[in-house]
Amino acid sequence: MAAAPVWSVDPRTGKQREQVAVEATAQEVDAAVRAAHAARASLADRAVRAAFLRSAADQLQAAKDQLVEVADAETALGPVRLTGELARTCYQLRAFADIVDEGAFLDVVINHPDDTATPPIPDLRRYKVPLGVVAVYSASNFPFAFSVPGGDTASALAAGCPVVVKAHPDHPALSELVAIVLRRAAAEHGIPEGVLGLVHGFEAGVELVKHPLVTAAGFTGSVRGGRALFDAAAARPVPIPFHGELGSLNPVLITEAAAAERAEAIGAGLAGSMTLGVGQFCVKPGLVLAPAGDAGDRLLKSLTDAVSDVGSGVLLDHRMRDNFLAGVAERAELPEVESPVTAGAGGDHTVSPGFLTVPAEKLAAEGEHDLLLEECFGPLTVVARYTDEDEAKSVLSRLPGNLTATVHVSGEEAAEGGRGPELLAELTPLAGRVLVNGWPTGVAVAAAQHHGGPYPATTSTSTSVGGTAIERWLRPVAYQGAPEALLPPELRDDNPLGLPRRFDGRLER
Amino acid sequence: MAAAPVWSVDPRTGKQREQVAVEATAQEVDAAVRAAHAARASLADRAVRAAFLRSAADQLQAAKDQLVEVADAETALGPVRLTGELARTCYQLRAFADIVDEGAFLDVVINHPDDTATPPIPDLRRYKVPLGVVAVYSASNFPFAFSVPGGDTASALAAGCPVVVKAHPDHPALSELVAIVLRRAAAEHGIPEGVLGLVHGFEAGVELVKHPLVTAAGFTGSVRGGRALFDAAAARPVPIPFHGELGSLNPVLITEAAAAERAEAIGAGLAGSMTLGVGQFCVKPGLVLAPAGDAGDRLLKSLTDAVSDVGSGVLLDHRMRDNFLAGVAERAELPEVESPVTAGAGGDHTVSPGFLTVPAEKLAAEGEHDLLLEECFGPLTVVARYTDEDEAKSVLSRLPGNLTATVHVSGEEAAEGGRGPELLAELTPLAGRVLVNGWPTGVAVAAAQHHGGPYPATTSTSTSVGGTAIERWLRPVAYQGAPEALLPPELRDDNPLGLPRRFDGRLER
Repeated sequence: MAAAPVWSVDPRTGKQREQVAVEATAQEVDAAVRAAHAARASLADRAVRAAFLRSAADQLQAAKDQLVEVADAETALGPVRLTGELARTCYQLRAFADIVDEGAFLDVVINHPDDTATPPIPDLRRYKVPLGVVAVYSASNFPFAFSVPGGDTASALAAGCPVVVKAHPDHPALSELVAIVLRRAAAEHGIPEGVLGLVHGFEAGVELVKHPLVTAAGFTGSVRGGRALFDAAAARPVPIPFHGELGSLNPVLITEAAAAERAEAIGAGLAGSMTLGVGQFCVKPGLVLAPAGDAGDRLLKSLTDAVSDVGSGVLLDHRMRDNFLAGVAERAELPEVESPVTAGAGGDHTVSPGFLTVPAEKLAAEGEHDLLLEECFGPLTVVARYTDEDEAKSVLSRLPGNLTATVHVSGEEAAEGGRGPELLAELTPLAGRVLVNGWPTGVAVAAAQHHGGPYPATTSTSTSVGGTAIERWLRPVAYQGAPEALLPPELRDDNPLGLPRRFDGRLER
Repeated sequence: MAAAPVWSVDPRTGKQREQVAVEATAQEVDAAVRAAHAARASLADRAVRAAFLRSAADQLQAAKDQLVEVADAETALGPVRLTGELARTCYQLRAFADIVDEGAFLDVVINHPDDTATPPIPDLRRYKVPLGVVAVYSASNFPFAFSVPGGDTASALAAGCPVVVKAHPDHPALSELVAIVLRRAAAEHGIPEGVLGLVHGFEAGVELVKHPLVTAAGFTGSVRGGRALFDAAAARPVPIPFHGELGSLNPVLITEAAAAERAEAIGAGLAGSMTLGVGQFCVKPGLVLAPAGDAGDRLLKSLTDAVSDVGSGVLLDHRMRDNFLAGVAERAELPEVESPVTAGAGGDHTVSPGFLTVPAEKLAAEGEHDLLLEECFGPLTVVARYTDEDEAKSVLSRLPGNLTATVHVSGEEAAEGGRGPELLAELTPLAGRVLVNGWPTGVAVAAAQHHGGPYPATTSTSTSVGGTAIERWLRPVAYQGAPEALLPPELRDDNPLGLPRRFDGRLER
């Protein structure tokens, strides 16, 4: 059987641009994993890892023009957005280099012998070591930031783990280019190119998660694909951690008082967030609880005007476009669902944004309207009109887990003594990030970031964005009774590397 | 169908002592989980949780005489060991109270807006919140420390998570007694008794891990039982973290130089560790790599003498005794396996300790001798004699994951410039705790402890002993753009609770 070709496709025309590669066979996946496994020792030195990450950022920036051009040809995301995404990706690589230098992620804990404890404590010293080869599954919608050079790869390399990336079929040419750039950066520091493997093909992705030398996986994509890989990871003879970001509705609650205070601004802000990037963000607000009545009507009027002004756009691929159009049609046909602005086909290759409305009571109990509680990837949102907040809360209580949950409150509600804390507490169980008077699109790269949430938002309690993303690829190891001469410098009393640590109970920074 | 009775059994006679309870039906499991779920709010205040944990320790100590008597009657572990185990359990409850008070486990991170970042950082504040109801599966071999009041329960309550415990059938009467004591302690602080549920029965355990309101599970037990529950946890519509400690061989490498230096002491130490508690520890050394030749012979002589001096003992139940005797017999029949001291049946209810020897080369490649690389629960160890260290290392490379790995080195090897670091690096991939010149039995309760390891030692990268065990029951949540008035005190700029935190990049302690 001939190897299946991997084509780069232009989503603006649906035409094949070029054949980039062929799908990897099981033998090729095995070779990539073994090469990555063999590269582990080259990442052992933290200073080398940090330098590698910084070189990777430099080289990606140097190749910016070519990379953005190819990315745009494959994804139609446009040069402005892609240039910004590449800058974000380089920033992220450098941020992880800083995290490697600081070393707090090693979680160093030292206990000297203590005979007063029950039972007595011997000399115990703990830190974290890299797990081994990490499989990374690229996302369609972020060809840089959640793909070959993205957060999963950056955090895994920072942790000391080589990576094998399963390329997303929406941007195979870019994936190959980026891999070459990253390997060039690795070579500058004597790191073999096997440190970053790249494979194409659905079956190759399944092989990858099952490979005995793969120790963990990071994934960004659909519930269906992610769950299948999660299940495969759990079913292995030796199960591995699978950190998948699968899907999120990102509910927004607009209080009556907030709508009364600034209906127009909220409507316009919502339109901007839900149509950004042709609605192709994991954190697109997909369900909005807005009050019935006059203030809510004004909000909808503003939303209608703003969404109507947004032109049509190209989705990442034609399968997504078909799914979007089918998803919109299926939802719009439900009883009592209206389409103030109808999302639909633009030309042959584009889609136009829109939104639906539904009485919130239709979502308060199980029924056919539950379809509205499923993510519809693309520029569509659902506005559920509630008659009182208990109705809104009963809808929220029925939602699966989310990456984000948002509340818009009035000035009085947000003030000391207002009901803001109660609303925040209501939303906290729903999501990994809770926003007040903002919009969920835009995920900052920061230590305090958490991009994750209850299933299916993520399959674990971890984050894929921000400094703590590194924790996914490490495991603790404790040394007992080891003389100083045997210990790695990270665990020696005199702290030659100046690491933050817990030393006999005290936090030292 | 009548409910199946749950009997307390005396392992010294095999006779039923009393009927303690009946196995829980699915409805009863549901009721226990719902009661626990309803108790969540009562654990929201950290000060209340800490006080509850301390009261639990006080009340358990106050009930010591009764508890130890019942525990001994059900487990035959003896009053000295059980009194020590109860003291350890109370120490652990108090240690988690201290951890709750300190609050470092909340992992507070605050980022103020930063327009120089790419993309700009909004106001983001992150900490950790409890997951919800935790299912705890008790161990047979630690009726206190890894059962109803043990580390899983203590760390879950410390995290703010109510618990439903699946009692171990080896100590159902003690489990009921301890639950009453813990609920009494809860009542002192206005916490409803549902905060600690208790169910009996194999089927009840399966129901528990599948319950939609159960958010995580902790398990200590066999590979077979633990894997079945892990699989059930992963197969749920909403998968949950399953932190299971399943099995471990705990390899020990004795270098030629160490044997030459102190063969007798090592042999005697090994005998003590492998027979401690009738060999019923998860961290019992089950495979020892000792050099062939004279020094190794002296070590074996010392081991033989010391093991022969250890009397027979009662195992936790008769099924374990049957399995142990069958396991010993099956292993002893393998070619080139010898039994310098034959483990076997003592009287009708006891077993005597022993050990086997085998040439290490028999374990260096796949074959029938692989049975010797599986844990045999009880007072048996296997000494593999190696002719050179490469042979020893090829055996080590074939082992599944372990809780511990131990190396005995000579004074010269342990000194600065010796080969100690190389040996430590060899052992690190094998286990979660690496010991030098010690024995793995005895697991200290300390911040630097790590009781976990590569699968099947544990099903996750977490620990079930020591301060970081609390991390298993938490998830991060980030608040974006929330005015101070809406934020919990943990996340406010002025740090009214005095928590250690990361504040705009700086570590504050």
